Amino acid sequence: MPETVEIGLGREARRGYHLDEVALVPTRRTRASSVVSTGWQVDAHSFELPLVAAPSDAVVSPDTAVEIERLGGLAVLNGEGLWARYADPAEALATISDPAGCPTGVLQQIYAQPVSPELLSQRAGQLRDSGVRVAVRLSPQNTVALSPAVLSTVDLLVIQGTVISAEHVAGGSAEALNLKTFIADLDIPVLVGGVTNYQTALHLMRTGAAGVIVGYGAHSGSTTHTALGIDVPMATAIADAAAARRSYLDETGGRYVHLIGYGDITSGGDIAKALVCGADAVMLGEPLALAAEAPGGGRYWDPTASHPRVPRSALVELDVDPADRPSLEELLIGPTADPSGERNLFGSLRRVMAKCGYSSVKEFQKAELIVTGR
Amino acid sequence: MPETVEIGLGREARRGYHLDEVALVPTRRTRASSVVSTGWQVDAHSFELPLVAAPSDAVVSPDTAVEIERLGGLAVLNGEGLWARYADPAEALATISDPAGCPTGVLQQIYAQPVSPELLSQRAGQLRDSGVRVAVRLSPQNTVALSPAVLSTVDLLVIQGTVISAEHVAGGSAEALNLKTFIADLDIPVLVGGVTNYQTALHLMRTGAAGVIVGYGAHSGSTTHTALGIDVPMATAIADAAAARRSYLDETGGRYVHLIGYGDITSGGDIAKALVCGADAVMLGEPLALAAEAPGGGRYWDPTASHPRVPRSALVELDVDPADRPSLEELLIGPTADPSGERNLFGSLRRVMAKCGYSSVKEFQKAELIVTGR
Amino acid sequence: MPETVEIGLGREARRGYHLDEVALVPTRRTRASSVVSTGWQVDAHSFELPLVAAPSDAVVSPDTAVEIERLGGLAVLNGEGLWARYADPAEALATISDPAGCPTGVLQQIYAQPVSPELLSQRAGQLRDSGVRVAVRLSPQNTVALSPAVLSTVDLLVIQGTVISAEHVAGGSAEALNLKTFIADLDIPVLVGGVTNYQTALHLMRTGAAGVIVGYGAHSGSTTHTALGIDVPMATAIADAAAARRSYLDETGGRYVHLIGYGDITSGGDIAKALVCGADAVMLGEPLALAAEAPGGGRYWDPTASHPRVPRSALVELDVDPADRPSLEELLIGPTADPSGERNLFGSLRRVMAKCGYSSVKEFQKAELIVTGR
Amino acid sequence: MPETVEIGLGREARRGYHLDEVALVPTRRTRASSVVSTGWQVDAHSFELPLVAAPSDAVVSPDTAVEIERLGGLAVLNGEGLWARYADPAEALATISDPAGCPTGVLQQIYAQPVSPELLSQRAGQLRDSGVRVAVRLSPQNTVALSPAVLSTVDLLVIQGTVISAEHVAGGSAEALNLKTFIADLDIPVLVGGVTNYQTALHLMRTGAAGVIVGYGAHSGSTTHTALGIDVPMATAIADAAAARRSYLDETGGRYVHLIGYGDITSGGDIAKALVCGADAVMLGEPLALAAEAPGGGRYWDPTASHPRVPRSALVELDVDPADRPSLEELLIGPTADPSGERNLFGSLRRVMAKCGYSSVKEFQKAELIVTGR
Repeated sequence: MPETVEIGLGREARRGYHLDEVALVPTRRTRASSVVSTGWQVDAHSFELPLVAAPSDAVVSPDTAVEIERLGGLAVLNGEGLWARYADPAEALATISDPAGCPTGVLQQIYAQPVSPELLSQRAGQLRDSGVRVAVRLSPQNTVALSPAVLSTVDLLVIQGTVISAEHVAGGSAEALNLKTFIADLDIPVLVGGVTNYQTALHLMRTGAAGVIVGYGAHSGSTTHTALGIDVPMATAIADAAAARRSYLDETGGRYVHLIGYGDITSGGDIAKALVCGADAVMLGEPLALAAEAPGGGRYWDPTASHPRVPRSALVELDVDPADRPSLEELLIGPTADPSGERNLFGSLRRVMAKCGYSSVKEFQKAELIVTGR
Repeated sequence: MPETVEIGLGREARRGYHLDEVALVPTRRTRASSVVSTGWQVDAHSFELPLVAAPSDAVVSPDTAVEIERLGGLAVLNGEGLWARYADPAEALATISDPAGCPTGVLQQIYAQPVSPELLSQRAGQLRDSGVRVAVRLSPQNTVALSPAVLSTVDLLVIQGTVISAEHVAGGSAEALNLKTFIADLDIPVLVGGVTNYQTALHLMRTGAAGVIVGYGAHSGSTTHTALGIDVPMATAIADAAAARRSYLDETGGRYVHLIGYGDITSGGDIAKALVCGADAVMLGEPLALAAEAPGGGRYWDPTASHPRVPRSALVELDVDPADRPSLEELLIGPTADPSGERNLFGSLRRVMAKCGYSSVKEFQKAELIVTGR
Repeated sequence: MPETVEIGLGREARRGYHLDEVALVPTRRTRASSVVSTGWQVDAHSFELPLVAAPSDAVVSPDTAVEIERLGGLAVLNGEGLWARYADPAEALATISDPAGCPTGVLQQIYAQPVSPELLSQRAGQLRDSGVRVAVRLSPQNTVALSPAVLSTVDLLVIQGTVISAEHVAGGSAEALNLKTFIADLDIPVLVGGVTNYQTALHLMRTGAAGVIVGYGAHSGSTTHTALGIDVPMATAIADAAAARRSYLDETGGRYVHLIGYGDITSGGDIAKALVCGADAVMLGEPLALAAEAPGGGRYWDPTASHPRVPRSALVELDVDPADRPSLEELLIGPTADPSGERNLFGSLRRVMAKCGYSSVKEFQKAELIVTGR
Repeated sequence: MPETVEIGLGREARRGYHLDEVALVPTRRTRASSVVSTGWQVDAHSFELPLVAAPSDAVVSPDTAVEIERLGGLAVLNGEGLWARYADPAEALATISDPAGCPTGVLQQIYAQPVSPELLSQRAGQLRDSGVRVAVRLSPQNTVALSPAVLSTVDLLVIQGTVISAEHVAGGSAEALNLKTFIADLDIPVLVGGVTNYQTALHLMRTGAAGVIVGYGAHSGSTTHTALGIDVPMATAIADAAAARRSYLDETGGRYVHLIGYGDITSGGDIAKALVCGADAVMLGEPLALAAEAPGGGRYWDPTASHPRVPRSALVELDVDPADRPSLEELLIGPTADPSGERNLFGSLRRVMAKCGYSSVKEFQKAELIVTGR
C-alpha cells in the first residue's frame, strides 16, 4: 500500500518523493570500477551508456547526434524542432542564444514557423547517412500527420508529450492518435511518454511500446508546477512505473518494457538514483546543453518553452562562461576537473555502481535507498 | 480521522497542508482543451470563469468590474473601500501608489476617512448601470449599518472579514450581526467568510449563505501568521470545508453551498489545486493587481493592511516594471509570453483540466493529489 | 505516548516542534476584543499583561522597569548585570552599543568586572523606591552568595540559568544550591528555570517555585544549538511542562505552578502560540530591545553572550534605524503602523484571543493548534 | 525495526537523520564542568580529547601532529599525501593555497606526483622522533604496497577510503586487500572505514579492527551526494554502527570496537551529538583547517578532492580573514571570544556533558535526543 496522508477530512493524498530526497547507501562488498558495465540494450540496439539525449533543439542536432552515438548514447532529434522547420536553423539558433526582448516571445515567434514534412524527412535521412541509430521524436498530436515522413528511415520512434495517455479524447474534428493500433502496425521499437504514475505506465506498456518515458523533463526553467499545478516526484514516479513493469511482465509472461527517467536529473548522482528507483536509462536535456558542441549556445529550452498560449518553461541561460563549456566527451565519460558531479556523468555512475557493489544496471536497481531530510 | 501529531505530552495538533505542498497527478485519459468547460454557476448567475475578483481597492474599481465581467468573472467592490469613502478616490490612490514615509501609516490615514452610505449607494448604482452583476462586500461589523444602502441594487452580497463566525459575541452596546436571520430576510444570494475549518464552515452554511469563502486572502504581504499566530493551510482548509459541504448536503437533502478559495493562490497551478481540493471558484486579489488596468497602480493591499491598531499585511509593491504590466485579458485568459504561470491563469486551468482528463470544474474536484517534499 | 522516530537501529528520538511549526485555528464563535482580558496573576501580584521582561541588560534597567510596570508587565533586573557591577554603567553600555573589535570580546571584558553585593542591594532599593514590583534574577551558581543582598527588598526572586536542575552536582569545594530547601526558607514567590522537558519541570515544581521558566531565551543571536547541540523546540517544551503542571496539580491536590515561556518568541503571534501551548505568561528579551527606551541602544545580548570561555550567543545588532525605534508603549500595547506583528505585541494577542473566541489567557490554552509544513 | 517509507509501489526506503536534524535535551541533574572527563582510550593509547585529526594535508603535517598531541588529541598523517610525495611540500602547499586557474585541476596535477615509500617511511620516523603517537592513513587500494614502509614505526594504522568493505571485488590483475588476514597479522591497532551502515560496520568489526570510522568526512565542499548519489545521514549511520557494536559485543563475548564519527561535524554541538548517537570519538578535518598552524593556509581539501577522473569535493576556501585564524589551542580547548560554537570545540563538549549531567563520554552516549524540524 502506498504511503498516504489525509490532507483534509475525507481527502487523502499520497506522499511522493523527489530524487533529491533520496540517496544511495552502499551495503555490499565494494567492486572495482573496471568490472562494472553501464551497458544498455533496447530491442536490437545496444549502447555503452544508459543515455537517451532529449529531443531538445538545444541539445540534439544532426551533428551532435553523431558525437553522442560515438560516446555510447542514443540521441533523439525533435521531429518538430528547428531542423524540421528551417532549411538552415543557424539564424534561429543565433537569435535564441541572444534574444532581444522577451525570451519566450522570441521562442514563440521562431517556433510559429510550420514544420515541413519534407525537411523532416531529409533530416532523418541525413542522420541515417551519418551511420548512427536514427531516433526522432513526434508529439502525440502530430504523429498521425508527420510519421509518414520518417517511418522508412528511423530505427526508433519516440512519441512524446509532457503528459500522454494511451487513449486521448479529442475535440471537434481532430483525429486522435490510437497508440495501440499505431504501434501494432510498426516494425520498429517505439518509446512513449511521459507518464507520471502506475496506471498510465501500465496502459502505455499495453500499447506495445518498447520503452516508456517517466516524467516530462523537469529542469531548472520548468514552470509546470506553477502553471499547471502538476509536479512529478521522480523517485516515486519511476518506482511506480517499475511496479507497472512487474505487473506487465506477469500479465504477458515476460515482455520487458524499458523505463527511461526524464526530469530532475542534473548530476551523476541523480542518474544513479533514477536507475536504482527502477529506470533502465535516463533521458538528459539540460545537463547536455552545457556542452561546447550543443546547438543551444549556452541556453536550454524544450518544446514546452515555445507553446503559443501557455508556455511552461523558461529559456534557461546556463550559468557557465562560454570558454568553460566542456566537451560532450568530458560531460559524458570524463575525465574532468570539475567536482560538481555535473561532468563525467557516466564515469560517476560507474564509480557509484562499483562502490555499491553492482556490476550491471539491471542489478543496480536493487541497491538500497535512504530518505533524507535534505 | 484527520492526521494528528502529539506536539507535547497530551497535546495533539493536526497536520495541515498548504497548496504548495500538494500537486496534481494526471492518471486518466487525456482530453483536448477544446472539450473542457471552466464555467461556474452560483444561484441564477453564470460565469465562464470560476473567478471572484477580491474586494480590494487595488483590484476592483467600478471600471475594472466591467472588464472582469466581460472576461468571464465576478468582481466584488469593497463597500467600505475608497469608492465609498471618497467622491473621487484618484488622489488617495495616487498617494498610496507612491507613499511618502511609512506606507502602512499612509494607508491608515487614508482609510480613517469614514464610509459614506450615500457614496456607497451611488457606486452600486453605477455598477448596475454598467450592466454587470453587482457584488459588494461589507464587513460583519458594518453589515447592519451599511447594507440598507445597497440592498436594493446588488445581485450578490459578500459579507467578509478575515475570520468570521456564524454568531459573534459583541462587547458593550455594539449590536452584533446575526447572520442567520439577516440572510433569511434577503432574497439575493450571499457569500460569507472567511472560514478556516469544518465547524465554522458548517455553521456558516446553516445561515443560508449561497457560498462560503475559505481563507482570508493570504498573499505575499500578509503578516497574519506573525501578528496573530493564525495560519490557514489552504489545501486542508478547503478540503475540510468540502467535508462540511457533504455533511450539509446530507442534512438538507441536497442544498449545495459553493466554496470560494481565497489565499495563497498566485498561479494557474494554484487555482487548479484549490479546485481539486474542493473549491468551486477562487477569489483572487494580489494576482490581479498586476494588471495594467488595476487601480492599485502596481501595488496591492487588502482591508487588513489599513487597520488602525493592528495592521496585518503590508502594502505590497509588485515586482514588475510599469511598462510590463499585462492587460486583465492576458492575465485571465491569455495568450501570454510569460512562462511563470502567473499570466493566462484560466487558460492554464483549462489546459491542466484537459491533461488530467476532466471536462468540468465539479468533476475536476476528483482529480488525484500528491504531497511532495517541496 | 509522545511521537518517536527511530533515528538508527535501536535508537529512538522524540519529534519536537518549534513555535513556528504550529499555528492557531479559530474554531469557535468570534468575540469582540473589548470583552477579552489578557490579565495575569502570580501569587499576590496582578499584571494586565502576561509579560515578564527578561533579565537582559539590553532591556531592563531601573528606568525601563518603571515603564514596563506602568504598561502592565513585570520587569526583572539582572542581579549579576551591569547595574550590579558598575556604579554608573553608562560607559559600559556605550562601549557595547558601538563595540570596537570583536563584539564578544568586548562583552567578556566588560562583564569581567565583579558583581558588587552593595551595588546590587542599592539597585533593588532603587526599584522599590520607584514603586514597582521588585524582581531580580540571580544565577543558580551565585544565588547562595548574592541573595542576602536583595532578599529583604524583592517581591519576586528569579533564579535562572540556561539549563537548571533541582539538584546540581557541584565539583570540588563549591557549594551547590539546594533549591528545595532554599525556596522553603523564603516567603516570597520564586521563578526558576530554564527547563526543557517534563521531568525537570516536575522536579522544579516540587521545589516550591511559584513559576517555572520554560526555555533559555533562544533569540536571533543564539548559538546554543551549534555550541552545545542543545535545542529546545518551544511548542513541545511548553506543552510538556504543562503536562508536568497537571501531574503536579494532581499530586499536590491543587497547587498551580505558573509557566513562563522564554525563547523563539518574536511577535504577537508567537506570544499567542506560546500561551496556547500552555504558558501563563511569556518572558521577552530581544523583542523589547527594539524600544527607544531600551538600555541596549539598538543591540541585544543576554548573559550567555559574555561567558568568559564558551560564549553561546552573539551581540545582536537589531535591524532598525535609530530614528525608527518605537516606544515601549507602541511595542507592548500599540497602536502601531508596523504590520510585522513585532509591535503592539499584546494588542495583537488580545485580537487573536478574540478571533479564537476566548476571554482569558487560561481559557485560551485550550485553543486548537495546527502543524504546518512551513 | 527501522523507520521505513514507501517511496513508490513496492519500493521501500529507510528514513535517515542528519546530525543537524537532532538535538540534545538535558533531562538529568546538572553537573559542574570540573567533574566531567572527556577522555578517550583506544587499545593502550589514552587521549584527553575524543579527537582524531583527519588525514588531510590541509590539517595534519608532521608539525601540527605534535601540537594536536600536546592538546590531547590523535593526529593521523595521510600516508599518500603531500609529505609522502614531495621531499619538501612547501611549494605544493603554496600553490594550493593560492591556485591559479581551476582549483581542482591544480590539485589533480600536484597529486599526480607518485607516492614515495621512502619518503613515507621517513615521515613516520620523523613523527616517532617527535615523541607523539604515530598514526598514518593508507587507502585500501595501496595498503598492501605501502604498509611495509611504515609498519615498524606506527602506533596506529588507519586504513581509510570514502566507502570501504571487508572484502573488495578487484578487477583484472589487481591484488585486493583482505582486511581480515591483513589485520590478524599485525600487532598494532587498526582503524578502518568509512562505513555507512550496520552490515558493513559489523563486517569490518569482524576483521579485528580496533576502531571503525563512520562516514566519509562530508564537509562544506563535499559533492559526493551529487556526484555519486551517496549521502550518509550521520546520526543514523552512527546509531546503526553502534547497533553493530552491540551485536559484535554479544557474538564475541565482550570485544569492544571503537566508533569514530567522521563527517558533517563542524561545531562543539555536532561533536556532542555524534557522541550521543554512539561514537566514542570524532574525526575532524575542515574544522581544524581554520587553525593558524594548519598547513592548508586557510583552505581545506581531502583525498577525494584530487581524484584524477571523478573528483568528489571542492577545494574549500575557508571564510576567515587570515589575521583572525585562531590557534589550534583556541580551536580545541579555548577559551574563545567567538560564539559560533566552532571554536573551543571540546570546552563546549565538556560544558554540554555537564548540562546533561554525564561525567564520561561512554555515559554521555545515553543522553536523550530530540528530532527537530530545523
